[in-house]
Amino acid sequence: MQSPNSGGRGDGGPSPDDEFAVIERLRGRFGEAARAVQPSGPIPPEGDTWIGDDAAVVTLEAGLRAVWATDLVVDGVHVDRRICRLDDIGYKALMVTVSDLAAMGAWPRYALASVAAPRGTDIDLLGDGLAVAARETGCVVVGGDLSGSPALVVSVAALGAVREGAGPAPLLRTGARQGDHLLVTGPLGASAAGLRLLRAGRSGSDPDTAVPVAAYRRPRARLLEGEVARLSGASAAIDISDGLAGDAEKLARASGVGIALDRVPVAPGATAEEALDGGEEYELLVATADPDGVASAFVAAGLRRPEPVGRCTDPATGLTYRGSPLGPGGWRHRF
Amino acid sequence: MQSPNSGGRGDGGPSPDDEFAVIERLRGRFGEAARAVQPSGPIPPEGDTWIGDDAAVVTLEAGLRAVWATDLVVDGVHVDRRICRLDDIGYKALMVTVSDLAAMGAWPRYALASVAAPRGTDIDLLGDGLAVAARETGCVVVGGDLSGSPALVVSVAALGAVREGAGPAPLLRTGARQGDHLLVTGPLGASAAGLRLLRAGRSGSDPDTAVPVAAYRRPRARLLEGEVARLSGASAAIDISDGLAGDAEKLARASGVGIALDRVPVAPGATAEEALDGGEEYELLVATADPDGVASAFVAAGLRRPEPVGRCTDPATGLTYRGSPLGPGGWRHRF
Repeated sequence: MQSPNSGGRGDGGPSPDDEFAVIERLRGRFGEAARAVQPSGPIPPEGDTWIGDDAAVVTLEAGLRAVWATDLVVDGVHVDRRICRLDDIGYKALMVTVSDLAAMGAWPRYALASVAAPRGTDIDLLGDGLAVAARETGCVVVGGDLSGSPALVVSVAALGAVREGAGPAPLLRTGARQGDHLLVTGPLGASAAGLRLLRAGRSGSDPDTAVPVAAYRRPRARLLEGEVARLSGASAAIDISDGLAGDAEKLARASGVGIALDRVPVAPGATAEEALDGGEEYELLVATADPDGVASAFVAAGLRRPEPVGRCTDPATGLTYRGSPLGPGGWRHRF
Repeated sequence: MQSPNSGGRGDGGPSPDDEFAVIERLRGRFGEAARAVQPSGPIPPEGDTWIGDDAAVVTLEAGLRAVWATDLVVDGVHVDRRICRLDDIGYKALMVTVSDLAAMGAWPRYALASVAAPRGTDIDLLGDGLAVAARETGCVVVGGDLSGSPALVVSVAALGAVREGAGPAPLLRTGARQGDHLLVTGPLGASAAGLRLLRAGRSGSDPDTAVPVAAYRRPRARLLEGEVARLSGASAAIDISDGLAGDAEKLARASGVGIALDRVPVAPGATAEEALDGGEEYELLVATADPDGVASAFVAAGLRRPEPVGRCTDPATGLTYRGSPLGPGGWRHRF
């Protein structure tokens, strides 16, 4: 999970300690170790996806793959206990992990939930939120771990399975092609607006704050949207955990395309900047050569019609918004 | 993962905030949520094991079950960075999670590794340790999450799969029966002794400290031992993460038996108390009606002959060591 709603682009190119650079080095290390386990054949094997997508896709036996993701939620980094209740934190920790599966077009079946918490933390309240999110997503919490800790950290792993031949393969970040249309599953910026309101001391009980505050506190994974996108011929998808600009950049990088954003649907109460840069949306950004087909499938499934935001372009053009280049977007953890 | 090497029994009965009581309440919450997802049939379904064992066993499709576990390692709680290197922490985080699968007689296939770390943490060094443990256990790290955090927390999830009919089912904590013999896969207390030596300022480079310090820093999951126990007719197993006394108590409670310990093999350099109460051993405690059959299978597989430590008794006799009652054992997190 990315840190929330940074509301601004990064401070330049990657440093050796930025998240993406660290992940690349870890991928190398773990790939070498995998080669020792699996001395022949491609790494990862054909059809598997390891580090670098929303979720990992791993073969369990011939024809059956697990789709598997994990996310961390850290107090003081992703959430702030002064404005987030513990049940909201539990809810969010499960929902954001499930959202990684939604972005693959996969359904979560099971979750493990681990909580490292300072003494005095109301684990029951946190558990209430985890249980509500589990029920809402049709996912069963089957285990986890519990530990004391100087800081509150919640780690959730979610597991689904897909059998080969039961529809198209999981939707990857790498599948977008030049010319593809980009759609989002809903208007953006509500979560960032909710956080801004909470930080300003507003509650979620006023009519003008209820929707953005709920979007921040109780984000909903777009599971059906992801599944319909996969079944209706999308080429790639990513969940907008990091802001549209940041996640469009990740999609572009993974697929080897440029991205020209030309329109950003703004959620009620949000600013245009919040819609472009605010994270923790969990709407999906979907690439497809057939936007009308995908949109019709959404409507037929009773979902909101996805909205066009731009196109995939030549990689040389990079990431642009209304023709102007966007710098490296989104929040990165530094170590 | 339990906290290390408490070297003493708990301070009496469960409080509403102790780990076991909290887990029981969470099990209730998650069970209710599961009932909403799965309105008919038993919860968990026949053959599945959810919260309460070393690992969860969950059905992915007819005849195929995942064995799935997660563990947290928290700096200042389970490890102390003043005496543990980051690569040792990474190694341990993966190994202790894999050990939960070993206790089920299941082999890990894949792992997700998540790290929440303060700025300045050498994630590469931590990753080195994770990669070494992955290679040693034949497990591939296929994803994870990386976040800033006020405290270092490493969370690893490990996944294996078992097909029905491919040998006996995973070994549970609930399978021990009155009269069963109890075996351990090796002498105990080495890890606790290693921690004691490190805390006293000793290094692991002296001939008399190398073995216990390595046992503490680089514990090895007993994967082959767990598999051979499962295949040779063990009735139950648990890994000794929490001290023999503490884990024997958990096994007794889960299986509804008493346990009479009469002998504890002590590792070189460890005290008798460290062997009985020291945690983080990752040797397995195995129950079986046929100790000679299990021991022969171990020897035939090239493993050390497991050593008898006691018997399963009438539940009314509780947990005893050489005839004297043992209080509630092992370390519990309190919230």
